[in-house]
Amino acid sequence: MSARRYVAVVGPSSSTAEQDETAERLGGELARRGHVVVCGGGGGVMAAVSRGSAGAGGLVVGLLPGLDRTEGNPHLTVAIPTGLGELRNWLVVRAADVVVAVGGSWGTLSEVALAVRTGVPVVALGFWNLPDEAAAGGPAIRQAPDLDAALAAVDRVLADA
Amino acid sequence: MSARRYVAVVGPSSSTAEQDETAERLGGELARRGHVVVCGGGGGVMAAVSRGSAGAGGLVVGLLPGLDRTEGNPHLTVAIPTGLGELRNWLVVRAADVVVAVGGSWGTLSEVALAVRTGVPVVALGFWNLPDEAAAGGPAIRQAPDLDAALAAVDRVLADA
Amino acid sequence: MSARRYVAVVGPSSSTAEQDETAERLGGELARRGHVVVCGGGGGVMAAVSRGSAGAGGLVVGLLPGLDRTEGNPHLTVAIPTGLGELRNWLVVRAADVVVAVGGSWGTLSEVALAVRTGVPVVALGFWNLPDEAAAGGPAIRQAPDLDAALAAVDRVLADA
Amino acid sequence: MSARRYVAVVGPSSSTAEQDETAERLGGELARRGHVVVCGGGGGVMAAVSRGSAGAGGLVVGLLPGLDRTEGNPHLTVAIPTGLGELRNWLVVRAADVVVAVGGSWGTLSEVALAVRTGVPVVALGFWNLPDEAAAGGPAIRQAPDLDAALAAVDRVLADA
Repeated sequence: MSARRYVAVVGPSSSTAEQDETAERLGGELARRGHVVVCGGGGGVMAAVSRGSAGAGGLVVGLLPGLDRTEGNPHLTVAIPTGLGELRNWLVVRAADVVVAVGGSWGTLSEVALAVRTGVPVVALGFWNLPDEAAAGGPAIRQAPDLDAALAAVDRVLADA
Repeated sequence: MSARRYVAVVGPSSSTAEQDETAERLGGELARRGHVVVCGGGGGVMAAVSRGSAGAGGLVVGLLPGLDRTEGNPHLTVAIPTGLGELRNWLVVRAADVVVAVGGSWGTLSEVALAVRTGVPVVALGFWNLPDEAAAGGPAIRQAPDLDAALAAVDRVLADA
Repeated sequence: MSARRYVAVVGPSSSTAEQDETAERLGGELARRGHVVVCGGGGGVMAAVSRGSAGAGGLVVGLLPGLDRTEGNPHLTVAIPTGLGELRNWLVVRAADVVVAVGGSWGTLSEVALAVRTGVPVVALGFWNLPDEAAAGGPAIRQAPDLDAALAAVDRVLADA
Repeated sequence: MSARRYVAVVGPSSSTAEQDETAERLGGELARRGHVVVCGGGGGVMAAVSRGSAGAGGLVVGLLPGLDRTEGNPHLTVAIPTGLGELRNWLVVRAADVVVAVGGSWGTLSEVALAVRTGVPVVALGFWNLPDEAAAGGPAIRQAPDLDAALAAVDRVLADA
């Protein structure tokens, strides 16, 4: 196995045009770094990051909630139907060396919280601001103001790991 | 099958004395209402609610993260080793008609977020205050100032369901 | 937690009258021994063993494939919707100190094979005869000619464990 | 998403030299057909089919039982740690358009049985002979005497699907 790194990108399936543009550019940058992108394989942010990565020749893995492979977005290199429903979100987190959250939603929050709980680094871009109690003992989530800052944070996390 | 209702109680395994006291009283009240308590089967808030429910003659189910039944707390009526690690938290949520969060932690947050995401009502007691964005479209989490208010919220949710 | 033992009973959901009668008597005998019965919570052999156990005052846990608790058979003490589909069969096996197979089917075979693979003892009653290769190195499955022999095998396995 | 087909290859992690040679040639032939190979990512038959596929430029996905990506064999294109233990075998089956079993073992049997149970076609090469009851209603498993016959069976199954 190569030393490829795996970056999970999580975010709402109902996304804004700005989130989609960010996610697509993110996918391209991750592909150019040689990283595998892992996502839930659906629409919104998931489809945008897949399109960006695939467009730059990257490898994109979608872990789908249902049992039907054709429900995956058309940009996935590998589409794995799991039949686990929302539980598949945790497989996405488990598969990742670092998680990048683009935008906020309850589903995204559950993935981010699991990542923090299980020690997977999280970089957030336009994610919800979590309460002060959540940050006691130091920031568990690296909040990035823009895409360049998010990519720099990903690079640092992967260099440290 | 009887018309018993299932209440998941989630909270930190490293809990304060006050959280433990609240969880134990909560367990007793849920048992007196005839509800099945579902939890992760471990220590802290999980052990306290189990002790309270068992002490009042209630039925307590623990869905354990590991494969060893003896890792469950000693108050469980039924202890189910799942071998799923933290993923078992989502089985706790799926098994519930309503989720009560006592105290806050990243693990608890992941369970609460999944519950909101999948439409399971959540009552929170001493849980983190989530950001305003999370409450857009109406409060997804019923914040209760004390145990009596939490029990009243549980009663209302179960009456509506 | 008491020293209660957990016996998984697996078998076809489309069962014969003879299999149902055997499973119901088995449920009653397990309940009288104080054992918790774990099953998939559905019909056929699952419903029969649940009825037998509940009728003798036993505790029966059903781990359901879907997300709807009301799909469980009416004899379950505890009904846990998992949303895992057929994957829930493996939670049934993981939750057991011993597995009893009543009758044969492909679903039952997958559970029996997993139990052998993961070291959970199996007692079989009217199960398929597996090929000689499967028995190389000693019988992994205790074939019982009738209910009394099956119960004696369960007793021995639990005494040894 | 391309119209790539997914072939799960299952078999013992403790394999014979003959099984390894068969699995490696199988992996190469599947890669030349443009199919994605899905496996458990470990040793024995899993490593051999991965080596064969990777050597022919194919895409190989390993769904690992543990949480550590480095436990995967070195030939995987994509290595997904699941933390599900033996339960990950069912994800392998769910991800497949057809399952090929090379050799027999209890773990392999559990995967084959699940595939039959859930309607995924199975081609068997040196697998255990299952009892006559299992074949009632027609052969659920396509037994192939050699690699060429197995590949022809895979081609037919995928053409029909």
